[in-house]
Amino acid sequence: MQIQNPAESGKRPHVVIVGAGFGGLAVAHGLRSADVDVTIVDRQNHHLFQPLLYQVATAALSPADIAAPIRTIVRSQRHTHVLLDEVTGVDANTRSLSLATGATLAYDFLVLASGARHSYFGHDDWAEHAPGIKTIDDATRVRSKILLAMELAETNRQENVSRRDEFLTFVIIGGGPTGVEMAGAVAELTRHMAAMDFHFVTPTCVRILLVEAGSRLLATFPQDLGEAARKALESLGVKVMLNSRVTAIDEHGITMGEEHIDTMTVIWAAGFQASAAAQWLGAKSDRGGRVLVEPDLSVPGRPEIYVIGDTAAVIDRNGQPVPGIAPAAKQEGAHVAKLITARTRGQNATTPFRYRNFGTLATVGRQRAVIDFGWMRMSGLAAWLIWSTAHLYFLVGFRSRLIVGMNWLWNYLTFNRGARLITGGGLAKAPPEIRQLPIASPAPSLSLAG
Amino acid sequence: MQIQNPAESGKRPHVVIVGAGFGGLAVAHGLRSADVDVTIVDRQNHHLFQPLLYQVATAALSPADIAAPIRTIVRSQRHTHVLLDEVTGVDANTRSLSLATGATLAYDFLVLASGARHSYFGHDDWAEHAPGIKTIDDATRVRSKILLAMELAETNRQENVSRRDEFLTFVIIGGGPTGVEMAGAVAELTRHMAAMDFHFVTPTCVRILLVEAGSRLLATFPQDLGEAARKALESLGVKVMLNSRVTAIDEHGITMGEEHIDTMTVIWAAGFQASAAAQWLGAKSDRGGRVLVEPDLSVPGRPEIYVIGDTAAVIDRNGQPVPGIAPAAKQEGAHVAKLITARTRGQNATTPFRYRNFGTLATVGRQRAVIDFGWMRMSGLAAWLIWSTAHLYFLVGFRSRLIVGMNWLWNYLTFNRGARLITGGGLAKAPPEIRQLPIASPAPSLSLAG
Repeated sequence: MQIQNPAESGKRPHVVIVGAGFGGLAVAHGLRSADVDVTIVDRQNHHLFQPLLYQVATAALSPADIAAPIRTIVRSQRHTHVLLDEVTGVDANTRSLSLATGATLAYDFLVLASGARHSYFGHDDWAEHAPGIKTIDDATRVRSKILLAMELAETNRQENVSRRDEFLTFVIIGGGPTGVEMAGAVAELTRHMAAMDFHFVTPTCVRILLVEAGSRLLATFPQDLGEAARKALESLGVKVMLNSRVTAIDEHGITMGEEHIDTMTVIWAAGFQASAAAQWLGAKSDRGGRVLVEPDLSVPGRPEIYVIGDTAAVIDRNGQPVPGIAPAAKQEGAHVAKLITARTRGQNATTPFRYRNFGTLATVGRQRAVIDFGWMRMSGLAAWLIWSTAHLYFLVGFRSRLIVGMNWLWNYLTFNRGARLITGGGLAKAPPEIRQLPIASPAPSLSLAG
Repeated sequence: MQIQNPAESGKRPHVVIVGAGFGGLAVAHGLRSADVDVTIVDRQNHHLFQPLLYQVATAALSPADIAAPIRTIVRSQRHTHVLLDEVTGVDANTRSLSLATGATLAYDFLVLASGARHSYFGHDDWAEHAPGIKTIDDATRVRSKILLAMELAETNRQENVSRRDEFLTFVIIGGGPTGVEMAGAVAELTRHMAAMDFHFVTPTCVRILLVEAGSRLLATFPQDLGEAARKALESLGVKVMLNSRVTAIDEHGITMGEEHIDTMTVIWAAGFQASAAAQWLGAKSDRGGRVLVEPDLSVPGRPEIYVIGDTAAVIDRNGQPVPGIAPAAKQEGAHVAKLITARTRGQNATTPFRYRNFGTLATVGRQRAVIDFGWMRMSGLAAWLIWSTAHLYFLVGFRSRLIVGMNWLWNYLTFNRGARLITGGGLAKAPPEIRQLPIASPAPSLSLAG
């Protein structure tokens, strides 16, 4: 195995960025004029605007509305390369990454911005029945699941009443921003479909449950905003179940201690587990697997390695943890790009990172949101308008902004759901048990076989 | 098993339509004011604007741009039901359908509009290596395949030169309208990507081959239009191989007699096989499996069963076969709706179907098309403008029309490809052989392992 280091041979320093999320792209952007070579490694060919992924899962947006090829985003940066591959390990002594395709990649500076994934608190078997939403494939899978459940409920109107409840019950687990946004969007989607496009399923048949183990929603927001979110969800018909801890999940539903809820559709928005960066580095991490970094975001003892975004546990100067949201990851990425630029110029740059809090937001349905600016907080329609504007503004690329804006406007005016497609095989890929379910008649002359 | 017939019990006659393509929807639309109950059965929950599916496969449009939920399309028709299910058989004596979910569905009138799928001329093992494009899942799979091949080529620039040719060769099999449109779109997509977003793959490295067994392209069009399409494709850099019959396809490429072409990406646009309607009915069919229908589109000896669209072999009054295109299916659907309406009023309606030829079209890339109006033919930019307008006009639903129009305008002005997403697992779902390919360096400091 032969690893070349361009810096030693008098070439430009090589900066490797793992992950093309908000943090990784901010690093690449910050290095656009620096005298370095940059390689971005990602498992996907696209950057994803994750804050809107729940809208893909609820058929309001198409995947392409919120994703853009990484190559296109960094197109104008001549010295930036993109590599579709997966990191399997880091050798900090030889300064190289090993990749799933079998190659190694040498670096002078390494930025790990590899994000986070779900955690099922040790119950990995729940993943099959309660998918989370992190990738486009996750989102289209959840979308198909919701839409298929509605179709099955419509077909099973006469017989199998208990099965029908199972189809029409949608459970979202986790009362953080993702769970709150998802519950609101599922309520709007299913009730709107029932009202407009179904003959036998009516909006009142549909049950949406938001299950949270803690005593309130939006635990990282001020108390009154959590309460505002709860009221907004309840006005959309969501049943909010606080202090409810899930103890089991299988294909027929969820169990919370003594209580069992029959449902075909469970969506996971609870656990959080940082990417394997801490293992790659052998570095100390917090309970969520986030690497404990120095104030300048470098790894203790490895000044040439930085960790940012959801993979890093960053403590702000006021002693508070920096939240795992897009603006924080972007600020961290920009900070690291500045430090690397200074260091390639021979400066010993170790300026601590300082988080500027521009507010945290969560949306509930089509017209309500909650915002915490730190110095003020708001909820309701005004908050929703600010939320929409902010998200549109931060969407990568003008095209996305234009199309998403049009889609939103159109959905808002017509309450239409443009992307209501069951893909990935639809009924044919449904579990055999569902596929062979004896169905009742959708039309007067259909009856049960056998 | 108990089958109710609503007509016998004094209820409204029950019309069952199998397939929500252009033909099936035209029947439902034609029956919107008739005194009947209608049930549409489809395996998918959405109608698909199939003529533009190749644009999804080449990342110009998103799936939701060209698909709409069937329920939404027939939303305003109170007596029209939609059933997500798959037909497994027809019992013409008891007038009932059997469905994959185990139920039976009784009808008074049955319209089979279940379309067609690919045929590999007895080589079903080719399907795995040479996917065709009939569904949204097909199209996104082909899209991922093309984009992944480009990524692998970029990564393999230094080593494995022969592998690199394999990645950069794209073969389309079949010189009909689908193959011609696909070849033009693949050429534009890959060359544009190479020019704009890649560092090492240049447009001239990319090879696109269109393989046709016959002596000309667009066999169903006049000779000079086939020639115009060939020239247009060649100006886009497509190599058109006529009189070339494929004899083998495997994961490494295609074989034509003595000649072998290494390629990772083969797209099938050749064979055609009607749905199993003829088998369900035990009816006579042509070589492509199309049911030989009476002049009024009913099945011989079964006046209550009609077959339309790609599932029917319809001979026009001039003795010519009616082409398997959307306008023909729509006209047939409207015709059948009229006959059924008349018959439910007690008339003995058996008016023969007459095809009105408004022209057939095929497009080649962004600015060229060929059109055969029968009384005149044209090619070039003017034909492309007519093609675009016609397709926009016929797209189901205003939203689709608006979004597709915007996407087209945007792509035309910027040459951007908005939907360039590798989904379905991307690299992780690539064949193990590809996944573990030792890759060469994308950046100066990457080298081969081992």
